[in-house]
Amino acid sequence: MDKSTRDALQNAKFEDTYIHTDGMPWTPFSDGIEIKVLRTSQESGTWTTLFRCAKGSSFARHEHLGAGEYLMLSGKMEVRGGVEKGGITAYPGDYGYEPNGMIHDSTCFPESSVFYFTNYGPIRFMDDEDKTIFVLDWKAVAKIGADSAASARAAE
Amino acid sequence: MDKSTRDALQNAKFEDTYIHTDGMPWTPFSDGIEIKVLRTSQESGTWTTLFRCAKGSSFARHEHLGAGEYLMLSGKMEVRGGVEKGGITAYPGDYGYEPNGMIHDSTCFPESSVFYFTNYGPIRFMDDEDKTIFVLDWKAVAKIGADSAASARAAE
Amino acid sequence: MDKSTRDALQNAKFEDTYIHTDGMPWTPFSDGIEIKVLRTSQESGTWTTLFRCAKGSSFARHEHLGAGEYLMLSGKMEVRGGVEKGGITAYPGDYGYEPNGMIHDSTCFPESSVFYFTNYGPIRFMDDEDKTIFVLDWKAVAKIGADSAASARAAE
Amino acid sequence: MDKSTRDALQNAKFEDTYIHTDGMPWTPFSDGIEIKVLRTSQESGTWTTLFRCAKGSSFARHEHLGAGEYLMLSGKMEVRGGVEKGGITAYPGDYGYEPNGMIHDSTCFPESSVFYFTNYGPIRFMDDEDKTIFVLDWKAVAKIGADSAASARAAE
Repeated sequence: MDKSTRDALQNAKFEDTYIHTDGMPWTPFSDGIEIKVLRTSQESGTWTTLFRCAKGSSFARHEHLGAGEYLMLSGKMEVRGGVEKGGITAYPGDYGYEPNGMIHDSTCFPESSVFYFTNYGPIRFMDDEDKTIFVLDWKAVAKIGADSAASARAAE
Repeated sequence: MDKSTRDALQNAKFEDTYIHTDGMPWTPFSDGIEIKVLRTSQESGTWTTLFRCAKGSSFARHEHLGAGEYLMLSGKMEVRGGVEKGGITAYPGDYGYEPNGMIHDSTCFPESSVFYFTNYGPIRFMDDEDKTIFVLDWKAVAKIGADSAASARAAE
Repeated sequence: MDKSTRDALQNAKFEDTYIHTDGMPWTPFSDGIEIKVLRTSQESGTWTTLFRCAKGSSFARHEHLGAGEYLMLSGKMEVRGGVEKGGITAYPGDYGYEPNGMIHDSTCFPESSVFYFTNYGPIRFMDDEDKTIFVLDWKAVAKIGADSAASARAAE
Repeated sequence: MDKSTRDALQNAKFEDTYIHTDGMPWTPFSDGIEIKVLRTSQESGTWTTLFRCAKGSSFARHEHLGAGEYLMLSGKMEVRGGVEKGGITAYPGDYGYEPNGMIHDSTCFPESSVFYFTNYGPIRFMDDEDKTIFVLDWKAVAKIGADSAASARAAE
């Protein structure tokens, strides 16, 4: 068997993912924040997305039950209060890895921003006493993605 | 204990990663291809990088011993022969996930390209008979990153 | 450099874990259930334990936010109602993998049982309306292990 | 919808694994060593097995490209030369975690031994100059398991 045939047989066992993200609609996620769901993994609980955050928007208080990894594409993001309060202020081209277990009281966007984001597990949104409000896991993210795709098809 | 103090104590247990990638030098990886090493994980074997590939460059034949996940930032990438041969041709903004086990005979760059890339384990470079030439694991990627940082410091 | 020296230098970079589990005390986990904490991973959120469950004990209603993998060592475990209700009844020597996302209304032990267990992420305990009661993550498991070790030292 | 119906619908989305390992045949792995393949994951490259090692048998020189985690069930295992040479000697009930990146020149069994073992990625068997002889990944382990199951069916 020649190399090309051999490789094709091997690769046919696996399903790749390829997304032209410019063709996807932005879907509402939370107040002022939209999402494009690129991948969710049932097995590992990992999910990868694009987030677009309006000027002045923010993610509510949460705890990472899986590490977060991001690449800023545009705008400005203040993590854990931003650099002035001991946290991080991320600009386009900046990369970050927030370890599993981190608590983010508020992640703010002083400018309209887009970033690419992978989370390696769930995120637990919680109140000021650390009580659970909502657990955002791969199932919840996958549902947002599926609902968005269904709406896009219905609109065609 | 107030919320801010409590959160600060919790977060102090973990070390985050934050990189202003524009300030990092591009380091030679292979013929026509340069790399910026953003993160390597000893525990999981995962590594995250930026690659800059000159027009006409390509990655040599390899097998993924861990899935690859990418976001194209500029240029054009032909995976598994490109779309004309049943593979993928990726443009800026495109996202892909190549499963663990995939074989890439050649990944080509018909234009100068930059992409963000995470690999969830080693990559095995191999000859046309699938014999191992070199296993690129987190240790090898970390060494490239450490050598690059040492060179940059020496040049200051 | 000879092989032994080379290997020793390589291995010295990493810290292994080795536990003579017979020498560890059983620590209370929940009503009728005791635990030995063998490993918790901050990075991945994975944790590995031994559980000893008294006859008639059970784990409360929970959802897996990470897969569970086990090897039964003694006794009898009824997962998802046991085999008579479409679930699983596990005996010594039996192996199981419960995928991420599974809900276990009750996991019961009709006999005194010991099993080895790895969970690849958190477990969310919840009420009958699926509201979160408690999220058992690597931090909570690590605290049980640390408290148990401190008690054992104090008792010496 | 009542709780039982709701849970059943949720759980039906996922396929669990349950194996009565006593009913599986031991399959040859290497000289004096037999294996039962319990699980292989295409997505993560993780694999879980039971190994039975004859008195005097040993695993050949290898490098972990994924961490190994084990529970000794019977016999005696000498890892990295055993405790007398700075490594580990494991007895029944003992637990160990060998980090990603570790090199094991020889893992020996002075007594007939059985242990439960998960490896979080490939293992690279290599010669004394660290040249790759064979990469044992989830595909290779899955093939051993599939061949063993086919033989068992043919023998019925």
